[in-house]
Amino acid sequence: MRIYRSPHNPLIQTKDIVPSRGDFEVIGVFNAGVTRLGDEVIMLLRVAERPINSNAQKLLTAVYDFVSDEFAIKEFSLDNQDNDYTDPRLIITPRQTYLTSISHLRLARSKDGIYFDIEDKPSILPANKYETFGLEDPRITLIDDTFYISYVGVCPFGITTCLISTQDFTSFHHHGVIFCPDNKDVVLFPEKIEGKYYALHRPASTLFQKQHIWIAESADLYCWGNHRNLMAPRGGYWDENKIGAGAVPLKIEQGWLEIYHGVDKNNIYSLGAVLLDNTEPWKIIARSEQPILQPETDYERLGFFGNVVFSCGLILEDDKLGIYYGAADTSICYAELSLDQIMQNLKPIV
Amino acid sequence: MRIYRSPHNPLIQTKDIVPSRGDFEVIGVFNAGVTRLGDEVIMLLRVAERPINSNAQKLLTAVYDFVSDEFAIKEFSLDNQDNDYTDPRLIITPRQTYLTSISHLRLARSKDGIYFDIEDKPSILPANKYETFGLEDPRITLIDDTFYISYVGVCPFGITTCLISTQDFTSFHHHGVIFCPDNKDVVLFPEKIEGKYYALHRPASTLFQKQHIWIAESADLYCWGNHRNLMAPRGGYWDENKIGAGAVPLKIEQGWLEIYHGVDKNNIYSLGAVLLDNTEPWKIIARSEQPILQPETDYERLGFFGNVVFSCGLILEDDKLGIYYGAADTSICYAELSLDQIMQNLKPIV
Repeated sequence: MRIYRSPHNPLIQTKDIVPSRGDFEVIGVFNAGVTRLGDEVIMLLRVAERPINSNAQKLLTAVYDFVSDEFAIKEFSLDNQDNDYTDPRLIITPRQTYLTSISHLRLARSKDGIYFDIEDKPSILPANKYETFGLEDPRITLIDDTFYISYVGVCPFGITTCLISTQDFTSFHHHGVIFCPDNKDVVLFPEKIEGKYYALHRPASTLFQKQHIWIAESADLYCWGNHRNLMAPRGGYWDENKIGAGAVPLKIEQGWLEIYHGVDKNNIYSLGAVLLDNTEPWKIIARSEQPILQPETDYERLGFFGNVVFSCGLILEDDKLGIYYGAADTSICYAELSLDQIMQNLKPIV
Repeated sequence: MRIYRSPHNPLIQTKDIVPSRGDFEVIGVFNAGVTRLGDEVIMLLRVAERPINSNAQKLLTAVYDFVSDEFAIKEFSLDNQDNDYTDPRLIITPRQTYLTSISHLRLARSKDGIYFDIEDKPSILPANKYETFGLEDPRITLIDDTFYISYVGVCPFGITTCLISTQDFTSFHHHGVIFCPDNKDVVLFPEKIEGKYYALHRPASTLFQKQHIWIAESADLYCWGNHRNLMAPRGGYWDENKIGAGAVPLKIEQGWLEIYHGVDKNNIYSLGAVLLDNTEPWKIIARSEQPILQPETDYERLGFFGNVVFSCGLILEDDKLGIYYGAADTSICYAELSLDQIMQNLKPIV
């Protein structure tokens, strides 16, 4: 598929971000929630940091201590044979798995959707025991006049999805954990459908080692039930290993359009689309057989975790879909394609 | 602790259960939900079955096919080196994990709480795609005049907890999946606390390999949110490996009393107690340092899965707690102790 990538890519890089502390360095800015506020495009960036480290034999990471409300520096010896450092995102010790970075959310604003003013300080930092390993991958859903931010909270006992609401991106309201461990890639539909709110979510089955997309319903956005299995990875496809919802579902004439990510057997993260029924969103009408965006450029193939394109937000303008996406867990990029292109890419599910 | 075990133990054994089909055998009857209805004690038994098998080289299990509404027999060769049969409950193949048995729920009634009339036929059989590997471990909570049955539904893409309601144990109302994968050991509190329903649940973190007890709240019993981490296994204790709620929480003068199970490092399942705050049940007042019941007798130590005592229900009569429990995943037993005994066993959490 011919997809337009902005010549300004990456739009936002680590060098553009002021670290939250003098002794931290920013190792990634990616997976941003996106919305409009007034005449601006607003992004909530995921900013991943780690302590500055001059010792090549050590690995340092930071953990938020909710009791003292401070960050503690954790030190790991790279010589320690008991620890597994294979995945650049993880430190797996016999007693506990840690993350190699800790993320917070940072506000950025733009008039043209390309050049962003990025705040110097974090907007939302870890604040409780569910966020001691950080906040990740926000999605922003505007419902009436309130923005609902569903984001991943990581802590030693699980990966949860939490909810924050705001009307101005200045004061934020915390609503606690809305999906219990392990659950991520939660997107809230932007309006009630036949009287109920819906969310896509991605729980994990420990026993069966499955990571499918499910759909849940709610009366109030805080409590969720009637969980239904919506879609599974597909053997032999670009999304055969893992899938998860991406941007907030988009209401179009033909139904609800969801841009989701799929991971193939080589651990390559691509984006595709699925079309859900207008009034019964637990029914799939069509799904991409080929990805709409896959890692091709250097900035998508090389980075902290290479071969990743991952979207948490997009902007629709007339027939044009502007996709903001994290590239290689390192930077934020932008691509455009038309709704027509996506619809042609979809294969009806019979 | 001196605990009274019924001399009639096991109260219910596999030989007491008529198989649901002529070609099935019952391999366990255990983990029963318990309640009172009129002047009777009602139990919903978990009945585990497998196809009768005369071939010692094969292992047979049954899977419910929700499309045809029939059971399919799955055959596994014990010679197949690719499969892992180490856990007697599981068949782990490279592509999919299966259970070695499939469970349904069966009604039993008693006037004295010891001799039970057991129905000849299943009361609740697998009925949808979340139950193709069976229904397990029901808990019964009476709220107003309705019995709510939270039970585990197992299927190839996860372990969920589902909800059924009934007023007479004759007609049953299905409310779908209330906790998404993997989540089991869900017990609903029997009344609203300060305007909200609460449930204990036991999600699993795949990444961090943690299985803690969490508490969630709800306005309607169907949708759940504000998930809070309640309690963790304790290193060096009887509950160091895994924990999960057992019986429905009991309102006593001092707070909410929960009988839960803990698994130690030798995979021994015991029962202990935890006392939660009356009006803020996410706060722990006291917890058993020693189990109140642990496998000691032959019927608890030997069986389909030995060294297990596991309760899904109890009956309080004055100061006497009658605990029904599954023994060795094979039979149903009964023990009694006084509330005083339990309270003395509890160690305050400071």
